[in-house]
Amino acid sequence: MPSPAKRAFAEWLGTALLLAAVVGSGIMAQRLSGGNGALALLCNTIPTGAILVVLILIFGPVSGAHFNPAVTLAFVWLGELSWRRATVYIAAQVAGAIAGAWTAHLMFELPVWQLSQTVRSGGGQWFAEAVATFGLLLAIMGCRAHAPASVPYAVGLYITSAYWFTASTSFANPAVTIARSLSDTFSGIALAGVPAFVAAQFAGAAAATLLAGWIWDNDQANTSPT
Amino acid sequence: MPSPAKRAFAEWLGTALLLAAVVGSGIMAQRLSGGNGALALLCNTIPTGAILVVLILIFGPVSGAHFNPAVTLAFVWLGELSWRRATVYIAAQVAGAIAGAWTAHLMFELPVWQLSQTVRSGGGQWFAEAVATFGLLLAIMGCRAHAPASVPYAVGLYITSAYWFTASTSFANPAVTIARSLSDTFSGIALAGVPAFVAAQFAGAAAATLLAGWIWDNDQANTSPT
Amino acid sequence: MPSPAKRAFAEWLGTALLLAAVVGSGIMAQRLSGGNGALALLCNTIPTGAILVVLILIFGPVSGAHFNPAVTLAFVWLGELSWRRATVYIAAQVAGAIAGAWTAHLMFELPVWQLSQTVRSGGGQWFAEAVATFGLLLAIMGCRAHAPASVPYAVGLYITSAYWFTASTSFANPAVTIARSLSDTFSGIALAGVPAFVAAQFAGAAAATLLAGWIWDNDQANTSPT
Amino acid sequence: MPSPAKRAFAEWLGTALLLAAVVGSGIMAQRLSGGNGALALLCNTIPTGAILVVLILIFGPVSGAHFNPAVTLAFVWLGELSWRRATVYIAAQVAGAIAGAWTAHLMFELPVWQLSQTVRSGGGQWFAEAVATFGLLLAIMGCRAHAPASVPYAVGLYITSAYWFTASTSFANPAVTIARSLSDTFSGIALAGVPAFVAAQFAGAAAATLLAGWIWDNDQANTSPT
Repeated sequence: MPSPAKRAFAEWLGTALLLAAVVGSGIMAQRLSGGNGALALLCNTIPTGAILVVLILIFGPVSGAHFNPAVTLAFVWLGELSWRRATVYIAAQVAGAIAGAWTAHLMFELPVWQLSQTVRSGGGQWFAEAVATFGLLLAIMGCRAHAPASVPYAVGLYITSAYWFTASTSFANPAVTIARSLSDTFSGIALAGVPAFVAAQFAGAAAATLLAGWIWDNDQANTSPT
Repeated sequence: MPSPAKRAFAEWLGTALLLAAVVGSGIMAQRLSGGNGALALLCNTIPTGAILVVLILIFGPVSGAHFNPAVTLAFVWLGELSWRRATVYIAAQVAGAIAGAWTAHLMFELPVWQLSQTVRSGGGQWFAEAVATFGLLLAIMGCRAHAPASVPYAVGLYITSAYWFTASTSFANPAVTIARSLSDTFSGIALAGVPAFVAAQFAGAAAATLLAGWIWDNDQANTSPT
Repeated sequence: MPSPAKRAFAEWLGTALLLAAVVGSGIMAQRLSGGNGALALLCNTIPTGAILVVLILIFGPVSGAHFNPAVTLAFVWLGELSWRRATVYIAAQVAGAIAGAWTAHLMFELPVWQLSQTVRSGGGQWFAEAVATFGLLLAIMGCRAHAPASVPYAVGLYITSAYWFTASTSFANPAVTIARSLSDTFSGIALAGVPAFVAAQFAGAAAATLLAGWIWDNDQANTSPT
Repeated sequence: MPSPAKRAFAEWLGTALLLAAVVGSGIMAQRLSGGNGALALLCNTIPTGAILVVLILIFGPVSGAHFNPAVTLAFVWLGELSWRRATVYIAAQVAGAIAGAWTAHLMFELPVWQLSQTVRSGGGQWFAEAVATFGLLLAIMGCRAHAPASVPYAVGLYITSAYWFTASTSFANPAVTIARSLSDTFSGIALAGVPAFVAAQFAGAAAATLLAGWIWDNDQANTSPT
C-alpha cells in the first residue's frame, strides 16, 4: 500500500492534470471552433474523456484515482476510507484542481487569476448535475464489483457521454466545479452557481452509493481502490 | 444469481440511462450544432456508443444488460430465459426507456410529455432497421460465443457505426423506438412510424438469431448473460 | 475448426457488413455534412473503424476475419492457407463486398446498380495505397505475433488513422476497391482506377509480409487465424 | 530478445509511420476542413492517437516502441538502456521521423523537401511542451508499473488529449519536432522554434522520470520494454 503522502500527492497531481485537460482543451476548442458550439464541446469532450482513462490507469493503483470529493465521500460512507484520510484527499483534490486550471491559463498565456462569468443555474441544470454524478458513481461502483480493470475506460466513456446528455455538460465533481469557477473560459462556471451544483452532485452521489450497495452487493466486491 | 427484482430493476435503470443519453445528447447536439446535420448526428452518436459500453459493463453481470426487447426475445428463443421472465424484462425496458426520455426532457427544461412529429417511414428505413438489428444481434451472439468480455465494447462500437450506415440511424430496439416517439426532439420518431420499425427490428433479430446458432454453435458458448 | 462452408460464409457476410458500413456511412455523411469535406470524411471514418473492430471480434474465431484478398494471399504465402481455400475466400470477399455496397444503396433508396464516376488516380494515390496496405498488414502480423486479442482493435484503429494520413483515404483492400467502383457515392472509385489501386495494394501487402516475417519471427507466433 | 538491428529498425519504421500519420493527416485535415481550425485539429488528432496505439502494440515487443528520444533517454537514466544503444535508437528515431514526413509529402504529391514557416514560440508554448512531455512520460511510467498491457492505449489516449489541452498541440517528442520542421504543412514548426521546444520536452521528461521513480517504485515494475 502506498504511503499516505504518496496517495495524497497522486490525488493532487491527477486532479491537476485532469483540470489542465478540461480547462485547456476548452480554451483551445473555443479558440479554434469558429463559434460552432457543438464543435467546441466535442473538442472539449474527447480530450477530457481520454485523459480520464490515462489518469485512472496510472493513479488508480496509488490512490484509487478518485480526483473527486463525491467519490471520496462515497468510500467513507462504505467504510473503506477514514474521515481523516478523506479530508486529506479532498484538500488535495481541490488544491490540485485549482493548480490544474492555473496551469492551463499559463500554457495559453492568460491571466492566472480569473473568475468565471458564465452563469450556470436553474432547476434543469441542478437536476442534470444530480443525474450526472449519480451515473458516474454507478459506473465506478458497478465496474468495481465485477470488472475492476474496466474502471478507467468506464469513467472516461461515461464522462464523454455525460458532457452531452446532461444539460449542465456534467461537471459531476465538486473539486472540478470549484476550480472551473476560477477560469473565465469555455468550461467556466460563475461562483454563484457553485454551491447548488455541488449540493446536487452530493445528492446524486449519495443516491448512487445507496443503490449500488443493493445492486452489486459491494461487500462481495473483489477490489478496493483504497 | 441476482434476484428477479434486482434483474428487472437493472433492465429498467439501464434502459432509462440509455434513453437519457440518446435523447439528451440529441437535444444538446441539435442546440449547439448550428444546423449542421452531420455534426449533430456525430454528437448524438459518440455519447450513445460510449454510454452503451458503460451500461453493459455494469449491468451485464446483473441482468445480462439487454435493454432491448428484441435481445430478450432472442434469449427466450434460445431457451435461456423463460417467457415469464421475459415479460418482466420487456415491461421494465419499455418503462425505463420512457422514464429516460422524460429525464432528458426534465434536464433540458422541456415539457415532459411530448409526441414526436418526425416522420420516419418507407421501405429504405424499414430495411435499414432490419439490417441494424440483424447486425446488433450478430455482434452480441458472436462475442458471447468466443469473447464475452468484449460484448460491451462491441455493442457500443456497433451502434456508433450503425447510427451512420443505416438510413434510419439505427434505432434497432423496440423499447427505444417507443420511447423516442414520446420525444419531439432530434432523436424522435412520429408514433405512426413505430409499428413498422418494431416489426423490422424483430425480423432482423430473428434472422440473426437463426444464423448465429449455425455460425457460432452457441450451445458451446462459454457464457450466458442470464 | 469451423467447416469450410461456414468459413466462406463468414468471409462473405463480414465483408458485406463492412461494405454496407463503408458505403452507407459515406452516403449519410455526405448528405448531412453540408459540403464540409472534413466532416464528411470524419463521419465516414468513425463508423468504418468501429464496425471493423466488431466484425473481426465476431468473425475472427470463425474464418480469421480477413475480409481482404491481400490478407488472404499473405496467409497463403505464409503457408497457413491453401490456394484452394484462398480462392474460395477471395470469391466470398468480392461477392460479399458487392452485396454490402448494394445493401447500402437499398437502405438509402438509391439505384442498386451504379458505377462510380469519382476518378482516383495518380502516383501519389498509388503510393498511398501501397503505404496503406503495407501498414495494415504490419498491424495484423505484428499483433498476431504478440497480442492476438488486440487484432480487432488494432485494425479498427489503423483504418481510422489511414483514412486520413493516406492521400487515397486508404482503400487498402482489393475486394473493397472493386465494390466501391460499383457505388457512385461518397466512397466510390471510378472503374478505370481500380487496377492500379489493386496492384499497389498487393505490392504493399507483399512488402509487409516479407518484412513482418523478419521483424516478428512469425513462425513463433502463438496464434493462427486460419 | 530481438537483435539490436531489429530493434533499431523497429524504432526507425515505427517513427516513420508515426510521422507519416501526423503529417499526412494534418495535410488531409487542412485540405478538407474549409478553414475551420477545430475541425482540422480534430482530424489531425484522431488519426495520430489511433496510429500510436497500433504502433506501440506491434513494435512494443520488439524495441519498446519509444519512437521518442525523450523516452529513450529516460530509460538510459533508469539504467535500462545503455548509452550506446540509446544513441542508435535516437538516430533511428530522427531518421525515421524525417522519412515519415517525406513519405507523407510523396503521398500528397508535395515537394519532398520543405521547411516549415509556422512560427511556434513563446513562454506559453514552451511551458506547454514541458507539461505535454511530463504527462506523456508519466503515462508511460505509470502504466509500465501496474498495467503494462495498457501502455499502447494510454499513450494514444494521452496524445489525443494533449493535442488539445496544451497550447502547443503537444509535440512532446524531439524527433517528431525535428521532422515537423521539415514540413511546411498543417503540423509544421519553423526551424527557429525547434531548440526551445526540444529543451522544454527534455525538461518535462526529466521531471516526470524523477517523480515516477518515487510514485510507482519502478524498481518493482514487472516489465521492461527494453
